Amino acid sequence: MSIGDKLAEIFKQFPGIGERQAKRFVYFLMAKNPAYVEEFGRLLAELKKETRRCKKCFRFFAENPGRSISAAGRDICDICADPNADEGILMVVEKDSDLESVRKSGSYAGKYFVLGGLVPIVEKETPKFVRIKELKERAKDPGLGEIILAFPLSPQGDHTDFYVRGELKGFKAKVTSLGRGLSTGTELEYSDDDTIKNALLNRQ
Amino acid sequence: MSIGDKLAEIFKQFPGIGERQAKRFVYFLMAKNPAYVEEFGRLLAELKKETRRCKKCFRFFAENPGRSISAAGRDICDICADPNADEGILMVVEKDSDLESVRKSGSYAGKYFVLGGLVPIVEKETPKFVRIKELKERAKDPGLGEIILAFPLSPQGDHTDFYVRGELKGFKAKVTSLGRGLSTGTELEYSDDDTIKNALLNRQ
Amino acid sequence: MSIGDKLAEIFKQFPGIGERQAKRFVYFLMAKNPAYVEEFGRLLAELKKETRRCKKCFRFFAENPGRSISAAGRDICDICADPNADEGILMVVEKDSDLESVRKSGSYAGKYFVLGGLVPIVEKETPKFVRIKELKERAKDPGLGEIILAFPLSPQGDHTDFYVRGELKGFKAKVTSLGRGLSTGTELEYSDDDTIKNALLNRQ
Amino acid sequence: MSIGDKLAEIFKQFPGIGERQAKRFVYFLMAKNPAYVEEFGRLLAELKKETRRCKKCFRFFAENPGRSISAAGRDICDICADPNADEGILMVVEKDSDLESVRKSGSYAGKYFVLGGLVPIVEKETPKFVRIKELKERAKDPGLGEIILAFPLSPQGDHTDFYVRGELKGFKAKVTSLGRGLSTGTELEYSDDDTIKNALLNRQ
Repeated sequence: MSIGDKLAEIFKQFPGIGERQAKRFVYFLMAKNPAYVEEFGRLLAELKKETRRCKKCFRFFAENPGRSISAAGRDICDICADPNADEGILMVVEKDSDLESVRKSGSYAGKYFVLGGLVPIVEKETPKFVRIKELKERAKDPGLGEIILAFPLSPQGDHTDFYVRGELKGFKAKVTSLGRGLSTGTELEYSDDDTIKNALLNRQ
Repeated sequence: MSIGDKLAEIFKQFPGIGERQAKRFVYFLMAKNPAYVEEFGRLLAELKKETRRCKKCFRFFAENPGRSISAAGRDICDICADPNADEGILMVVEKDSDLESVRKSGSYAGKYFVLGGLVPIVEKETPKFVRIKELKERAKDPGLGEIILAFPLSPQGDHTDFYVRGELKGFKAKVTSLGRGLSTGTELEYSDDDTIKNALLNRQ
Repeated sequence: MSIGDKLAEIFKQFPGIGERQAKRFVYFLMAKNPAYVEEFGRLLAELKKETRRCKKCFRFFAENPGRSISAAGRDICDICADPNADEGILMVVEKDSDLESVRKSGSYAGKYFVLGGLVPIVEKETPKFVRIKELKERAKDPGLGEIILAFPLSPQGDHTDFYVRGELKGFKAKVTSLGRGLSTGTELEYSDDDTIKNALLNRQ
Repeated sequence: MSIGDKLAEIFKQFPGIGERQAKRFVYFLMAKNPAYVEEFGRLLAELKKETRRCKKCFRFFAENPGRSISAAGRDICDICADPNADEGILMVVEKDSDLESVRKSGSYAGKYFVLGGLVPIVEKETPKFVRIKELKERAKDPGLGEIILAFPLSPQGDHTDFYVRGELKGFKAKVTSLGRGLSTGTELEYSDDDTIKNALLNRQ
């Protein structure tokens, strides 16, 4: 197998990339000037070196964005360390990209927790990449007044909401879930029954 | 222009039908047996004859579904006439298909009002097919405790919500709007800022 | 079942129309003015009355496009009757819409024959709506110098080509098939192996 | 700008990749184990080191697929060096991925030439990445009996075909172009006029 074929195998594992596009990526890189490919390789190496998983919220973060690398490194990400972010409220999301989306919306000023995955409906044991234990540890924080569960509106998301609520029983913080109803662009005519039901229940 | 071409012109006015599909409809009808086309024509004629617009909620309804045509006809649809539907609550929708969608969801047991359209943002005068006057008439009903505005989550839908609330000021019934937030299938990662904001505001 | 529901059942049989769009068609017609629906019904009735299947090429045609209906009616369509169309060449297509597409292209000036369907690969007997017998009758025309088979490039189209060639063996006319190769917009990069093979074989 | 953001900028230049997917790639790499990312970076570095552009046909090729790197390196790719490939026939394609597609089809056993781009219709001078001069040099090969032009069926592809034919006038080899007509899956009903015309002209 040629280098190009091996590289195509790597690209095929990327989310949403099939065999044909993987090949096109290789041809694209072949035709690019060496400086571009070198920069690409350099960033790739640095990504792993500089990326840390935050010990508090478990999101990935770049240790020293745009600056020289510190000797020690940080264990806590910039959101967790931010004194302006509300310590009293914690949003639990499934994955990093959800967190990024909420952050960009500018509507939330609290802290986050990345669960790492959803709780499967059928399996008996929760997979170990779902950080239930770590969440319970985090929930002990006496300053927390509210924990917002922000999982997708799907059977597995609903199950995770239900499961996590059970696990957080007995903690001081009030547990809430994101509101449900019509979202931007939805029209009644094309809405499913559950969305209509939620929109009615949550009318105001 | 042949009959087929004229018929294709008719089909081209149907919602979502372009020139090519209009032609295919004509070929489809040409190849169908005469009994089918006859039945089609008969139903078409009856549709107009039997369809009435309800004098109370302004939805279209079939006067005598499946039965012989009465001499007099009714002015009020089956929902408005239904003694089991809650008289105290009225949902205002844009159009018939919205009403049908809510009705099928089985989550609503009150009465309806079909506004007939949305209120444009820029124009000074509300188009006459938008039944503001008729809605205010209907809102005088002393038995009404709540009026639910159920417009789409779009700039024009929001404007209509705002406008109708203004018009219904001073009436006895409380005015509410459908709840907003995540709808079935939406994931945070792909949600727009407004949906995230609404989902947060309406968390519970 | 109401008239509207029955009409929706009719629309659901239209090519490419699902339940939801069928309903929308009904609401669309309910809201249209009666004159439009009447005209629609009238054209529908006339379509069947004026549409004839040509006794020679088996295409549907409007007997008196745009004129008053003659007493007798014609058995032969305008293309078959056209003295300017080349009598020496016959194109065999699967269905009316294929014929219409070739006619509109303006690249063909001969006669047509509508086979009515493709010959299935697995079944032993050719379905009776495929007019093999009628085609062989038509092929006896001593003026015919060439018969062009114009079936889609699919396994069933290929099988029909093969089958019809067998049936037309021994007739005077030369049998040809439409050329194969690159078609408008196709790029080598995205072409399947058969298309590349055909494009190579038929290079010139 | 963080390393992740910089890397997303790189991915955004990949063919067919937008901002959102570029971000997803970064998160995907963050979550992957270091061994995968290291292998990725290593292949990337080798790709440029081992990739050569063939001095004869101008395609990219991996110098030592799967083996240790030789001291000298080769100037000529494996297809150009292959004694079994027909020396008498040359196919001119626009780009590497076209060549790869033809090669995989298994229907062609001759040599190739990668032109590097199409000749623009409006501009006066041919861009220097289009290797007209090099093609004319290659066409001097006295063993060449045929040169096949294999450009896409688009206005620019047609113009390039016309232009290259002009440039190759006076050479010994016969110049041909890929055949045109129906390609796999095309149906007459949905074919454009040019495709129908070509399919008719090239019937056989």
